[in-house]
Amino acid sequence: MTARASLTGPVLIVGAGLLGTSIGLALRRPGMDVLLRDVNPENIRTASGLGAGRAWDGQVPPQIVVVAVPPDFLGTEIIWALSSCPASVVTDVGSVKTDPLHAVERHSPTRYLARYVGSHPMAGSERSGPLAASASLFDGRPWAITPHESADPVAVDLVAKLVRVCGGTPVKLTPGEHDQAVARTSHLPHLLAALVAGRLTDAPKDHLRLSGQGVRDVTRIAAGDPGLWGQIVSANAGAIGALLLELRDDLDTMVDAIGGGERGTVEALLGRGVAGTAAIPGKHGGPAQEVAALFVAVPDHPGELARLLADAGDIGVNVEDLRIDHDPGRPVGLVELTVADDRVEFLQESLEAREWTTHR
Amino acid sequence: MTARASLTGPVLIVGAGLLGTSIGLALRRPGMDVLLRDVNPENIRTASGLGAGRAWDGQVPPQIVVVAVPPDFLGTEIIWALSSCPASVVTDVGSVKTDPLHAVERHSPTRYLARYVGSHPMAGSERSGPLAASASLFDGRPWAITPHESADPVAVDLVAKLVRVCGGTPVKLTPGEHDQAVARTSHLPHLLAALVAGRLTDAPKDHLRLSGQGVRDVTRIAAGDPGLWGQIVSANAGAIGALLLELRDDLDTMVDAIGGGERGTVEALLGRGVAGTAAIPGKHGGPAQEVAALFVAVPDHPGELARLLADAGDIGVNVEDLRIDHDPGRPVGLVELTVADDRVEFLQESLEAREWTTHR
Repeated sequence: MTARASLTGPVLIVGAGLLGTSIGLALRRPGMDVLLRDVNPENIRTASGLGAGRAWDGQVPPQIVVVAVPPDFLGTEIIWALSSCPASVVTDVGSVKTDPLHAVERHSPTRYLARYVGSHPMAGSERSGPLAASASLFDGRPWAITPHESADPVAVDLVAKLVRVCGGTPVKLTPGEHDQAVARTSHLPHLLAALVAGRLTDAPKDHLRLSGQGVRDVTRIAAGDPGLWGQIVSANAGAIGALLLELRDDLDTMVDAIGGGERGTVEALLGRGVAGTAAIPGKHGGPAQEVAALFVAVPDHPGELARLLADAGDIGVNVEDLRIDHDPGRPVGLVELTVADDRVEFLQESLEAREWTTHR
Repeated sequence: MTARASLTGPVLIVGAGLLGTSIGLALRRPGMDVLLRDVNPENIRTASGLGAGRAWDGQVPPQIVVVAVPPDFLGTEIIWALSSCPASVVTDVGSVKTDPLHAVERHSPTRYLARYVGSHPMAGSERSGPLAASASLFDGRPWAITPHESADPVAVDLVAKLVRVCGGTPVKLTPGEHDQAVARTSHLPHLLAALVAGRLTDAPKDHLRLSGQGVRDVTRIAAGDPGLWGQIVSANAGAIGALLLELRDDLDTMVDAIGGGERGTVEALLGRGVAGTAAIPGKHGGPAQEVAALFVAVPDHPGELARLLADAGDIGVNVEDLRIDHDPGRPVGLVELTVADDRVEFLQESLEAREWTTHR
């Protein structure tokens, strides 16, 4: 390895599932040599059939190994890669970073450690397996790179190059910071969404007829695979456990305040929630933009939504976000357009002039 | 009152805010006489200027009174309406139903009670006040009607007629059932979304760069007004408190299971969440339809989204839902189209043929 090596390949991908196959497809775009390894030969056939690379013969030495296996197998496979490919940089794309690092520290010779640099693309799908893969899965996505203290800067640089070739945006964090961050922004929301959704299973069917967009949004991610999430939670148990205890303290405070009629305390907790929503970075990573919502009634059949957006395009207002309302019993869809705050009035007037029914 | 009276008006609306003014606008569509009353004369001027009705002179006897004031004032205003308009049916549109009913039972002569029938439209906005009102706010929305045991069936029927003229779909529940239902489908999700969002306020800014669509969805409703939600929670403290205790039990189980490495227990809680998401009724109140998601990369400027949807319309596939991905750092938007499961492959192939970059 020379300082600041070019990424030339070959790249060995261990685990030809959704992420591994998507990385293969992304690396094949500029023609890089991609080698595939998987315990399941069917996955290799499917992934190579899709054009994500070719089966590894165990002989060609890779420049870099990407371990893309479920959380439970990350440590073992990273350690295997470090010892089987002694000249290669090794990264992984697991959603938790300290747990596999500790496994490597415990079970690999210290001299191996410099070549390992963890990473984690903020991309995925509710589907899994190589058939769900896509070359564009990572385009423009944040992709965490989590070098430990003994990581070789050349290895860190090579992983960043891999991320960029795949279309991702590198975000450097320590492994511990990463796990704290995803515990808060991903694992805690997932677990609480699951608990709120779980409470719906007790409800009489009639009661659920009153479900609006709010409960749908809060519980959407709770549909994720319990087996995979069980592995993720288990691998990040420390950071998640600490946050769950903080949340339980807040919940206890809320239960007592509601029971005791202390409305100021309830409002303070709700106010903190408002502040939390404002702390999430805006689109494209910039500061949260001032935006406003405009609701438009749209007949629920093909072409109508397109006509609305064509009109918005003609009017020259950029739609930052759009959601279709799902309340039961609606004969027409209600579409919520999110646009810049200083454009919403103009958009509303212009759409009304084109005979759309709108409200804010 | 004759059995099964027609809704002929006049309708007196007490409280010309978002809901009251929207009801006025909806009733004016078929030309009904709408009278307005509000402690704030400015609201009456605004609402009548918008065409939602005319200021009430205190003399014209209404056929029906609609009380549309914040939760804290519901009881007082319903009682006022029952005594000031002794021949009128009285309803309200508050988001909690047993609390105001008990106030009426405690403070009104028993003979008044038959004329009161509570209701609750499943519609609203993050904005408030008459300027945010819309005649189409209730079109196709569920609108709970919550008759108590002593309610006059003629009064119940008249409220149902009002709901239909406003465009809503009546859903009959007892006041207690209603409050249990919204505690579960609205208040509990709101409170937990606020607690999850509140935990974000402690995070270093760098960590929030890893925020994906999941945490945005879970916390979106937590941006709602703490003052209004404080009133709602206070008025439904009993039902909410019981559910919060159930949720705390689940949370305790989860904390212990994660701390003790009992993965089966964690997965069982997550599996229950999956079942809960499946229990929410599908669009248009039908059984949940089998749908699938297709992701399409769309340049982030006016017209491109319209072009995509025009293509989907040409292809003849109805888009059930659409969301625009908000991950920071994306140079293009990623649009998630939800379509019927048996149409997604056809749509993907047809869009790819039109040179869209897609993945599932």
